[in-house]
Amino acid sequence: MSSLRIFCDHGFRPPALEQLAAGLAPHQLILARQRVSSVLGQAGPDPGLAGADIAFGQPDVEALKDAPRLRWVHVSSAGYTRFDTGAFRAWARGRGVPLTTSSHVYARACAEHALAFLLAQCRGLPDALASRAPNGSPEWLRQRAVPRTPRGGQALVLGYGTIAEHLIPLLRALGLAVTAFRRQPRGDEVVPVVTPADLGPALGAADHVISLLPDNASTRRFMDRDRLAALKPGAVFYNLGRGTTVDQEALAEALHSGRLRAAWLDVTDPEPLPDGHPLRQAPHCHITPHLAGGHHDEEEHLVSHFLENFRRHLAGEPLLDRVV
Amino acid sequence: MSSLRIFCDHGFRPPALEQLAAGLAPHQLILARQRVSSVLGQAGPDPGLAGADIAFGQPDVEALKDAPRLRWVHVSSAGYTRFDTGAFRAWARGRGVPLTTSSHVYARACAEHALAFLLAQCRGLPDALASRAPNGSPEWLRQRAVPRTPRGGQALVLGYGTIAEHLIPLLRALGLAVTAFRRQPRGDEVVPVVTPADLGPALGAADHVISLLPDNASTRRFMDRDRLAALKPGAVFYNLGRGTTVDQEALAEALHSGRLRAAWLDVTDPEPLPDGHPLRQAPHCHITPHLAGGHHDEEEHLVSHFLENFRRHLAGEPLLDRVV
Repeated sequence: MSSLRIFCDHGFRPPALEQLAAGLAPHQLILARQRVSSVLGQAGPDPGLAGADIAFGQPDVEALKDAPRLRWVHVSSAGYTRFDTGAFRAWARGRGVPLTTSSHVYARACAEHALAFLLAQCRGLPDALASRAPNGSPEWLRQRAVPRTPRGGQALVLGYGTIAEHLIPLLRALGLAVTAFRRQPRGDEVVPVVTPADLGPALGAADHVISLLPDNASTRRFMDRDRLAALKPGAVFYNLGRGTTVDQEALAEALHSGRLRAAWLDVTDPEPLPDGHPLRQAPHCHITPHLAGGHHDEEEHLVSHFLENFRRHLAGEPLLDRVV
Repeated sequence: MSSLRIFCDHGFRPPALEQLAAGLAPHQLILARQRVSSVLGQAGPDPGLAGADIAFGQPDVEALKDAPRLRWVHVSSAGYTRFDTGAFRAWARGRGVPLTTSSHVYARACAEHALAFLLAQCRGLPDALASRAPNGSPEWLRQRAVPRTPRGGQALVLGYGTIAEHLIPLLRALGLAVTAFRRQPRGDEVVPVVTPADLGPALGAADHVISLLPDNASTRRFMDRDRLAALKPGAVFYNLGRGTTVDQEALAEALHSGRLRAAWLDVTDPEPLPDGHPLRQAPHCHITPHLAGGHHDEEEHLVSHFLENFRRHLAGEPLLDRVV
């Protein structure tokens, strides 16, 4: 086989870049002039892409169409909103170009972040860590009565993908009964699944509603005012999917009214939220700035996951995390 | 059987008091004049104790000896330091008075608090919740590389009692390999156990060292300067047992030097720590004020646990959480 040209516009630091180049050799790594250091970033057109066989990173959707040799696109994020259109799918299918994501790289970290949110909520950690209440004082007695065990409660997971597969066993280990929402059940889910038709009762029954929904045309403002109003009083809402899937004004109102106990958000729209945003002032609203997928060896993990898919590509085996 | 007199000096609020009185009827509930609202509290002598058959709460050790009808003492805490002396044990055995604790009431909450600490540490939650770093910024990239998965790591649990029994399955669900320290192994432990003789290597191998040790003569300053120095560089120390079991000055130094990654403490000596205490200034030292056993229905749980033991006492069945 002649040498392949692998275009990369993800802004890896030197150790991961060296790992990538070494893993691809004798094939040729072509680095973009402008590299993207955020998983939400997007590169512009780049001359290096035109001659590439494979694109890895966050390439410009239109520029892909001017790469006649292109045979595979692997994005360095779990989300692939820019590619999740009928037009791109039609082009990719017509050209026989599969699209894969880095979903597995972030899934465990996201699941652990969700579990950290849930346990921090159950144990009242934000207030507890800020407190110096003396043993037996009225404030201590108040704080001591805040925690609620997850055990025996109900969790509803919105979106049944790789993160859910990692998260569900952890939730069950805490003694939560788990239900999942999936638009099109496949029959291989390990927990009861609800679809859009029967989502309402599931929203009303859950103590913990954990959204992992991606951003696409069918998920925008999925948690709208009506669905937020359908949540059980005292429920906690978590979002580790995409900020665009939530009506944030309605969420802020549900927190102000006290009907929702708390919200834990790793994603917002926009990121970061401006200072004056209603969610910044909402009580019991805890926000991390899109860190759920992060981990200390994330870059090496992205590279090793891509290299495994590269091996599969060369061997003609099914690719991991293929979405188109 | 004639009516028994049950003395209670725990400062329950009305709903739990009513539950207690109703559960004891037709036996007689005698409330102390001065009631204790902290699990670390201690009541003084009380005339109601002298005629009691059973004492429930935090009774004065000396006053028990002036209660000729006493046949059973049930403390409302998991710890029983004041009773954990040779003198008390000799008296209790001589009189045939068993001592039981409320260990099971707090165990699940403590285990969940420990797990919340561990996951908050693994995901860098304290800094992440305070951050508004924009996606792709240097600070965001730094924060994104902080989290470390627990999976594949080693946890060492110091103290193998009721909390450990609840905690160990949760740690294993996260993919941690768990070892436990127990002074006198019984052979029924579900994980490898080390004793004082082989503790050193276990301390040096663990990524997460979780102390659940009670306060007694054999545990004071158990985590002394030498044992803290034996911990693996980058290890995290958690304490949900008692503050007296740790050399806090040495712990503060290990945090200042950066040799320990972090400490998460629910217990300190004293509680709360004064403002100028070295641990208050130590980096990555996270403290909650003795809240680990707390939960929203703690009082009802204390009462139902005592009533179950009361039923066993009347039926002549083995008592729960018996320590003497």
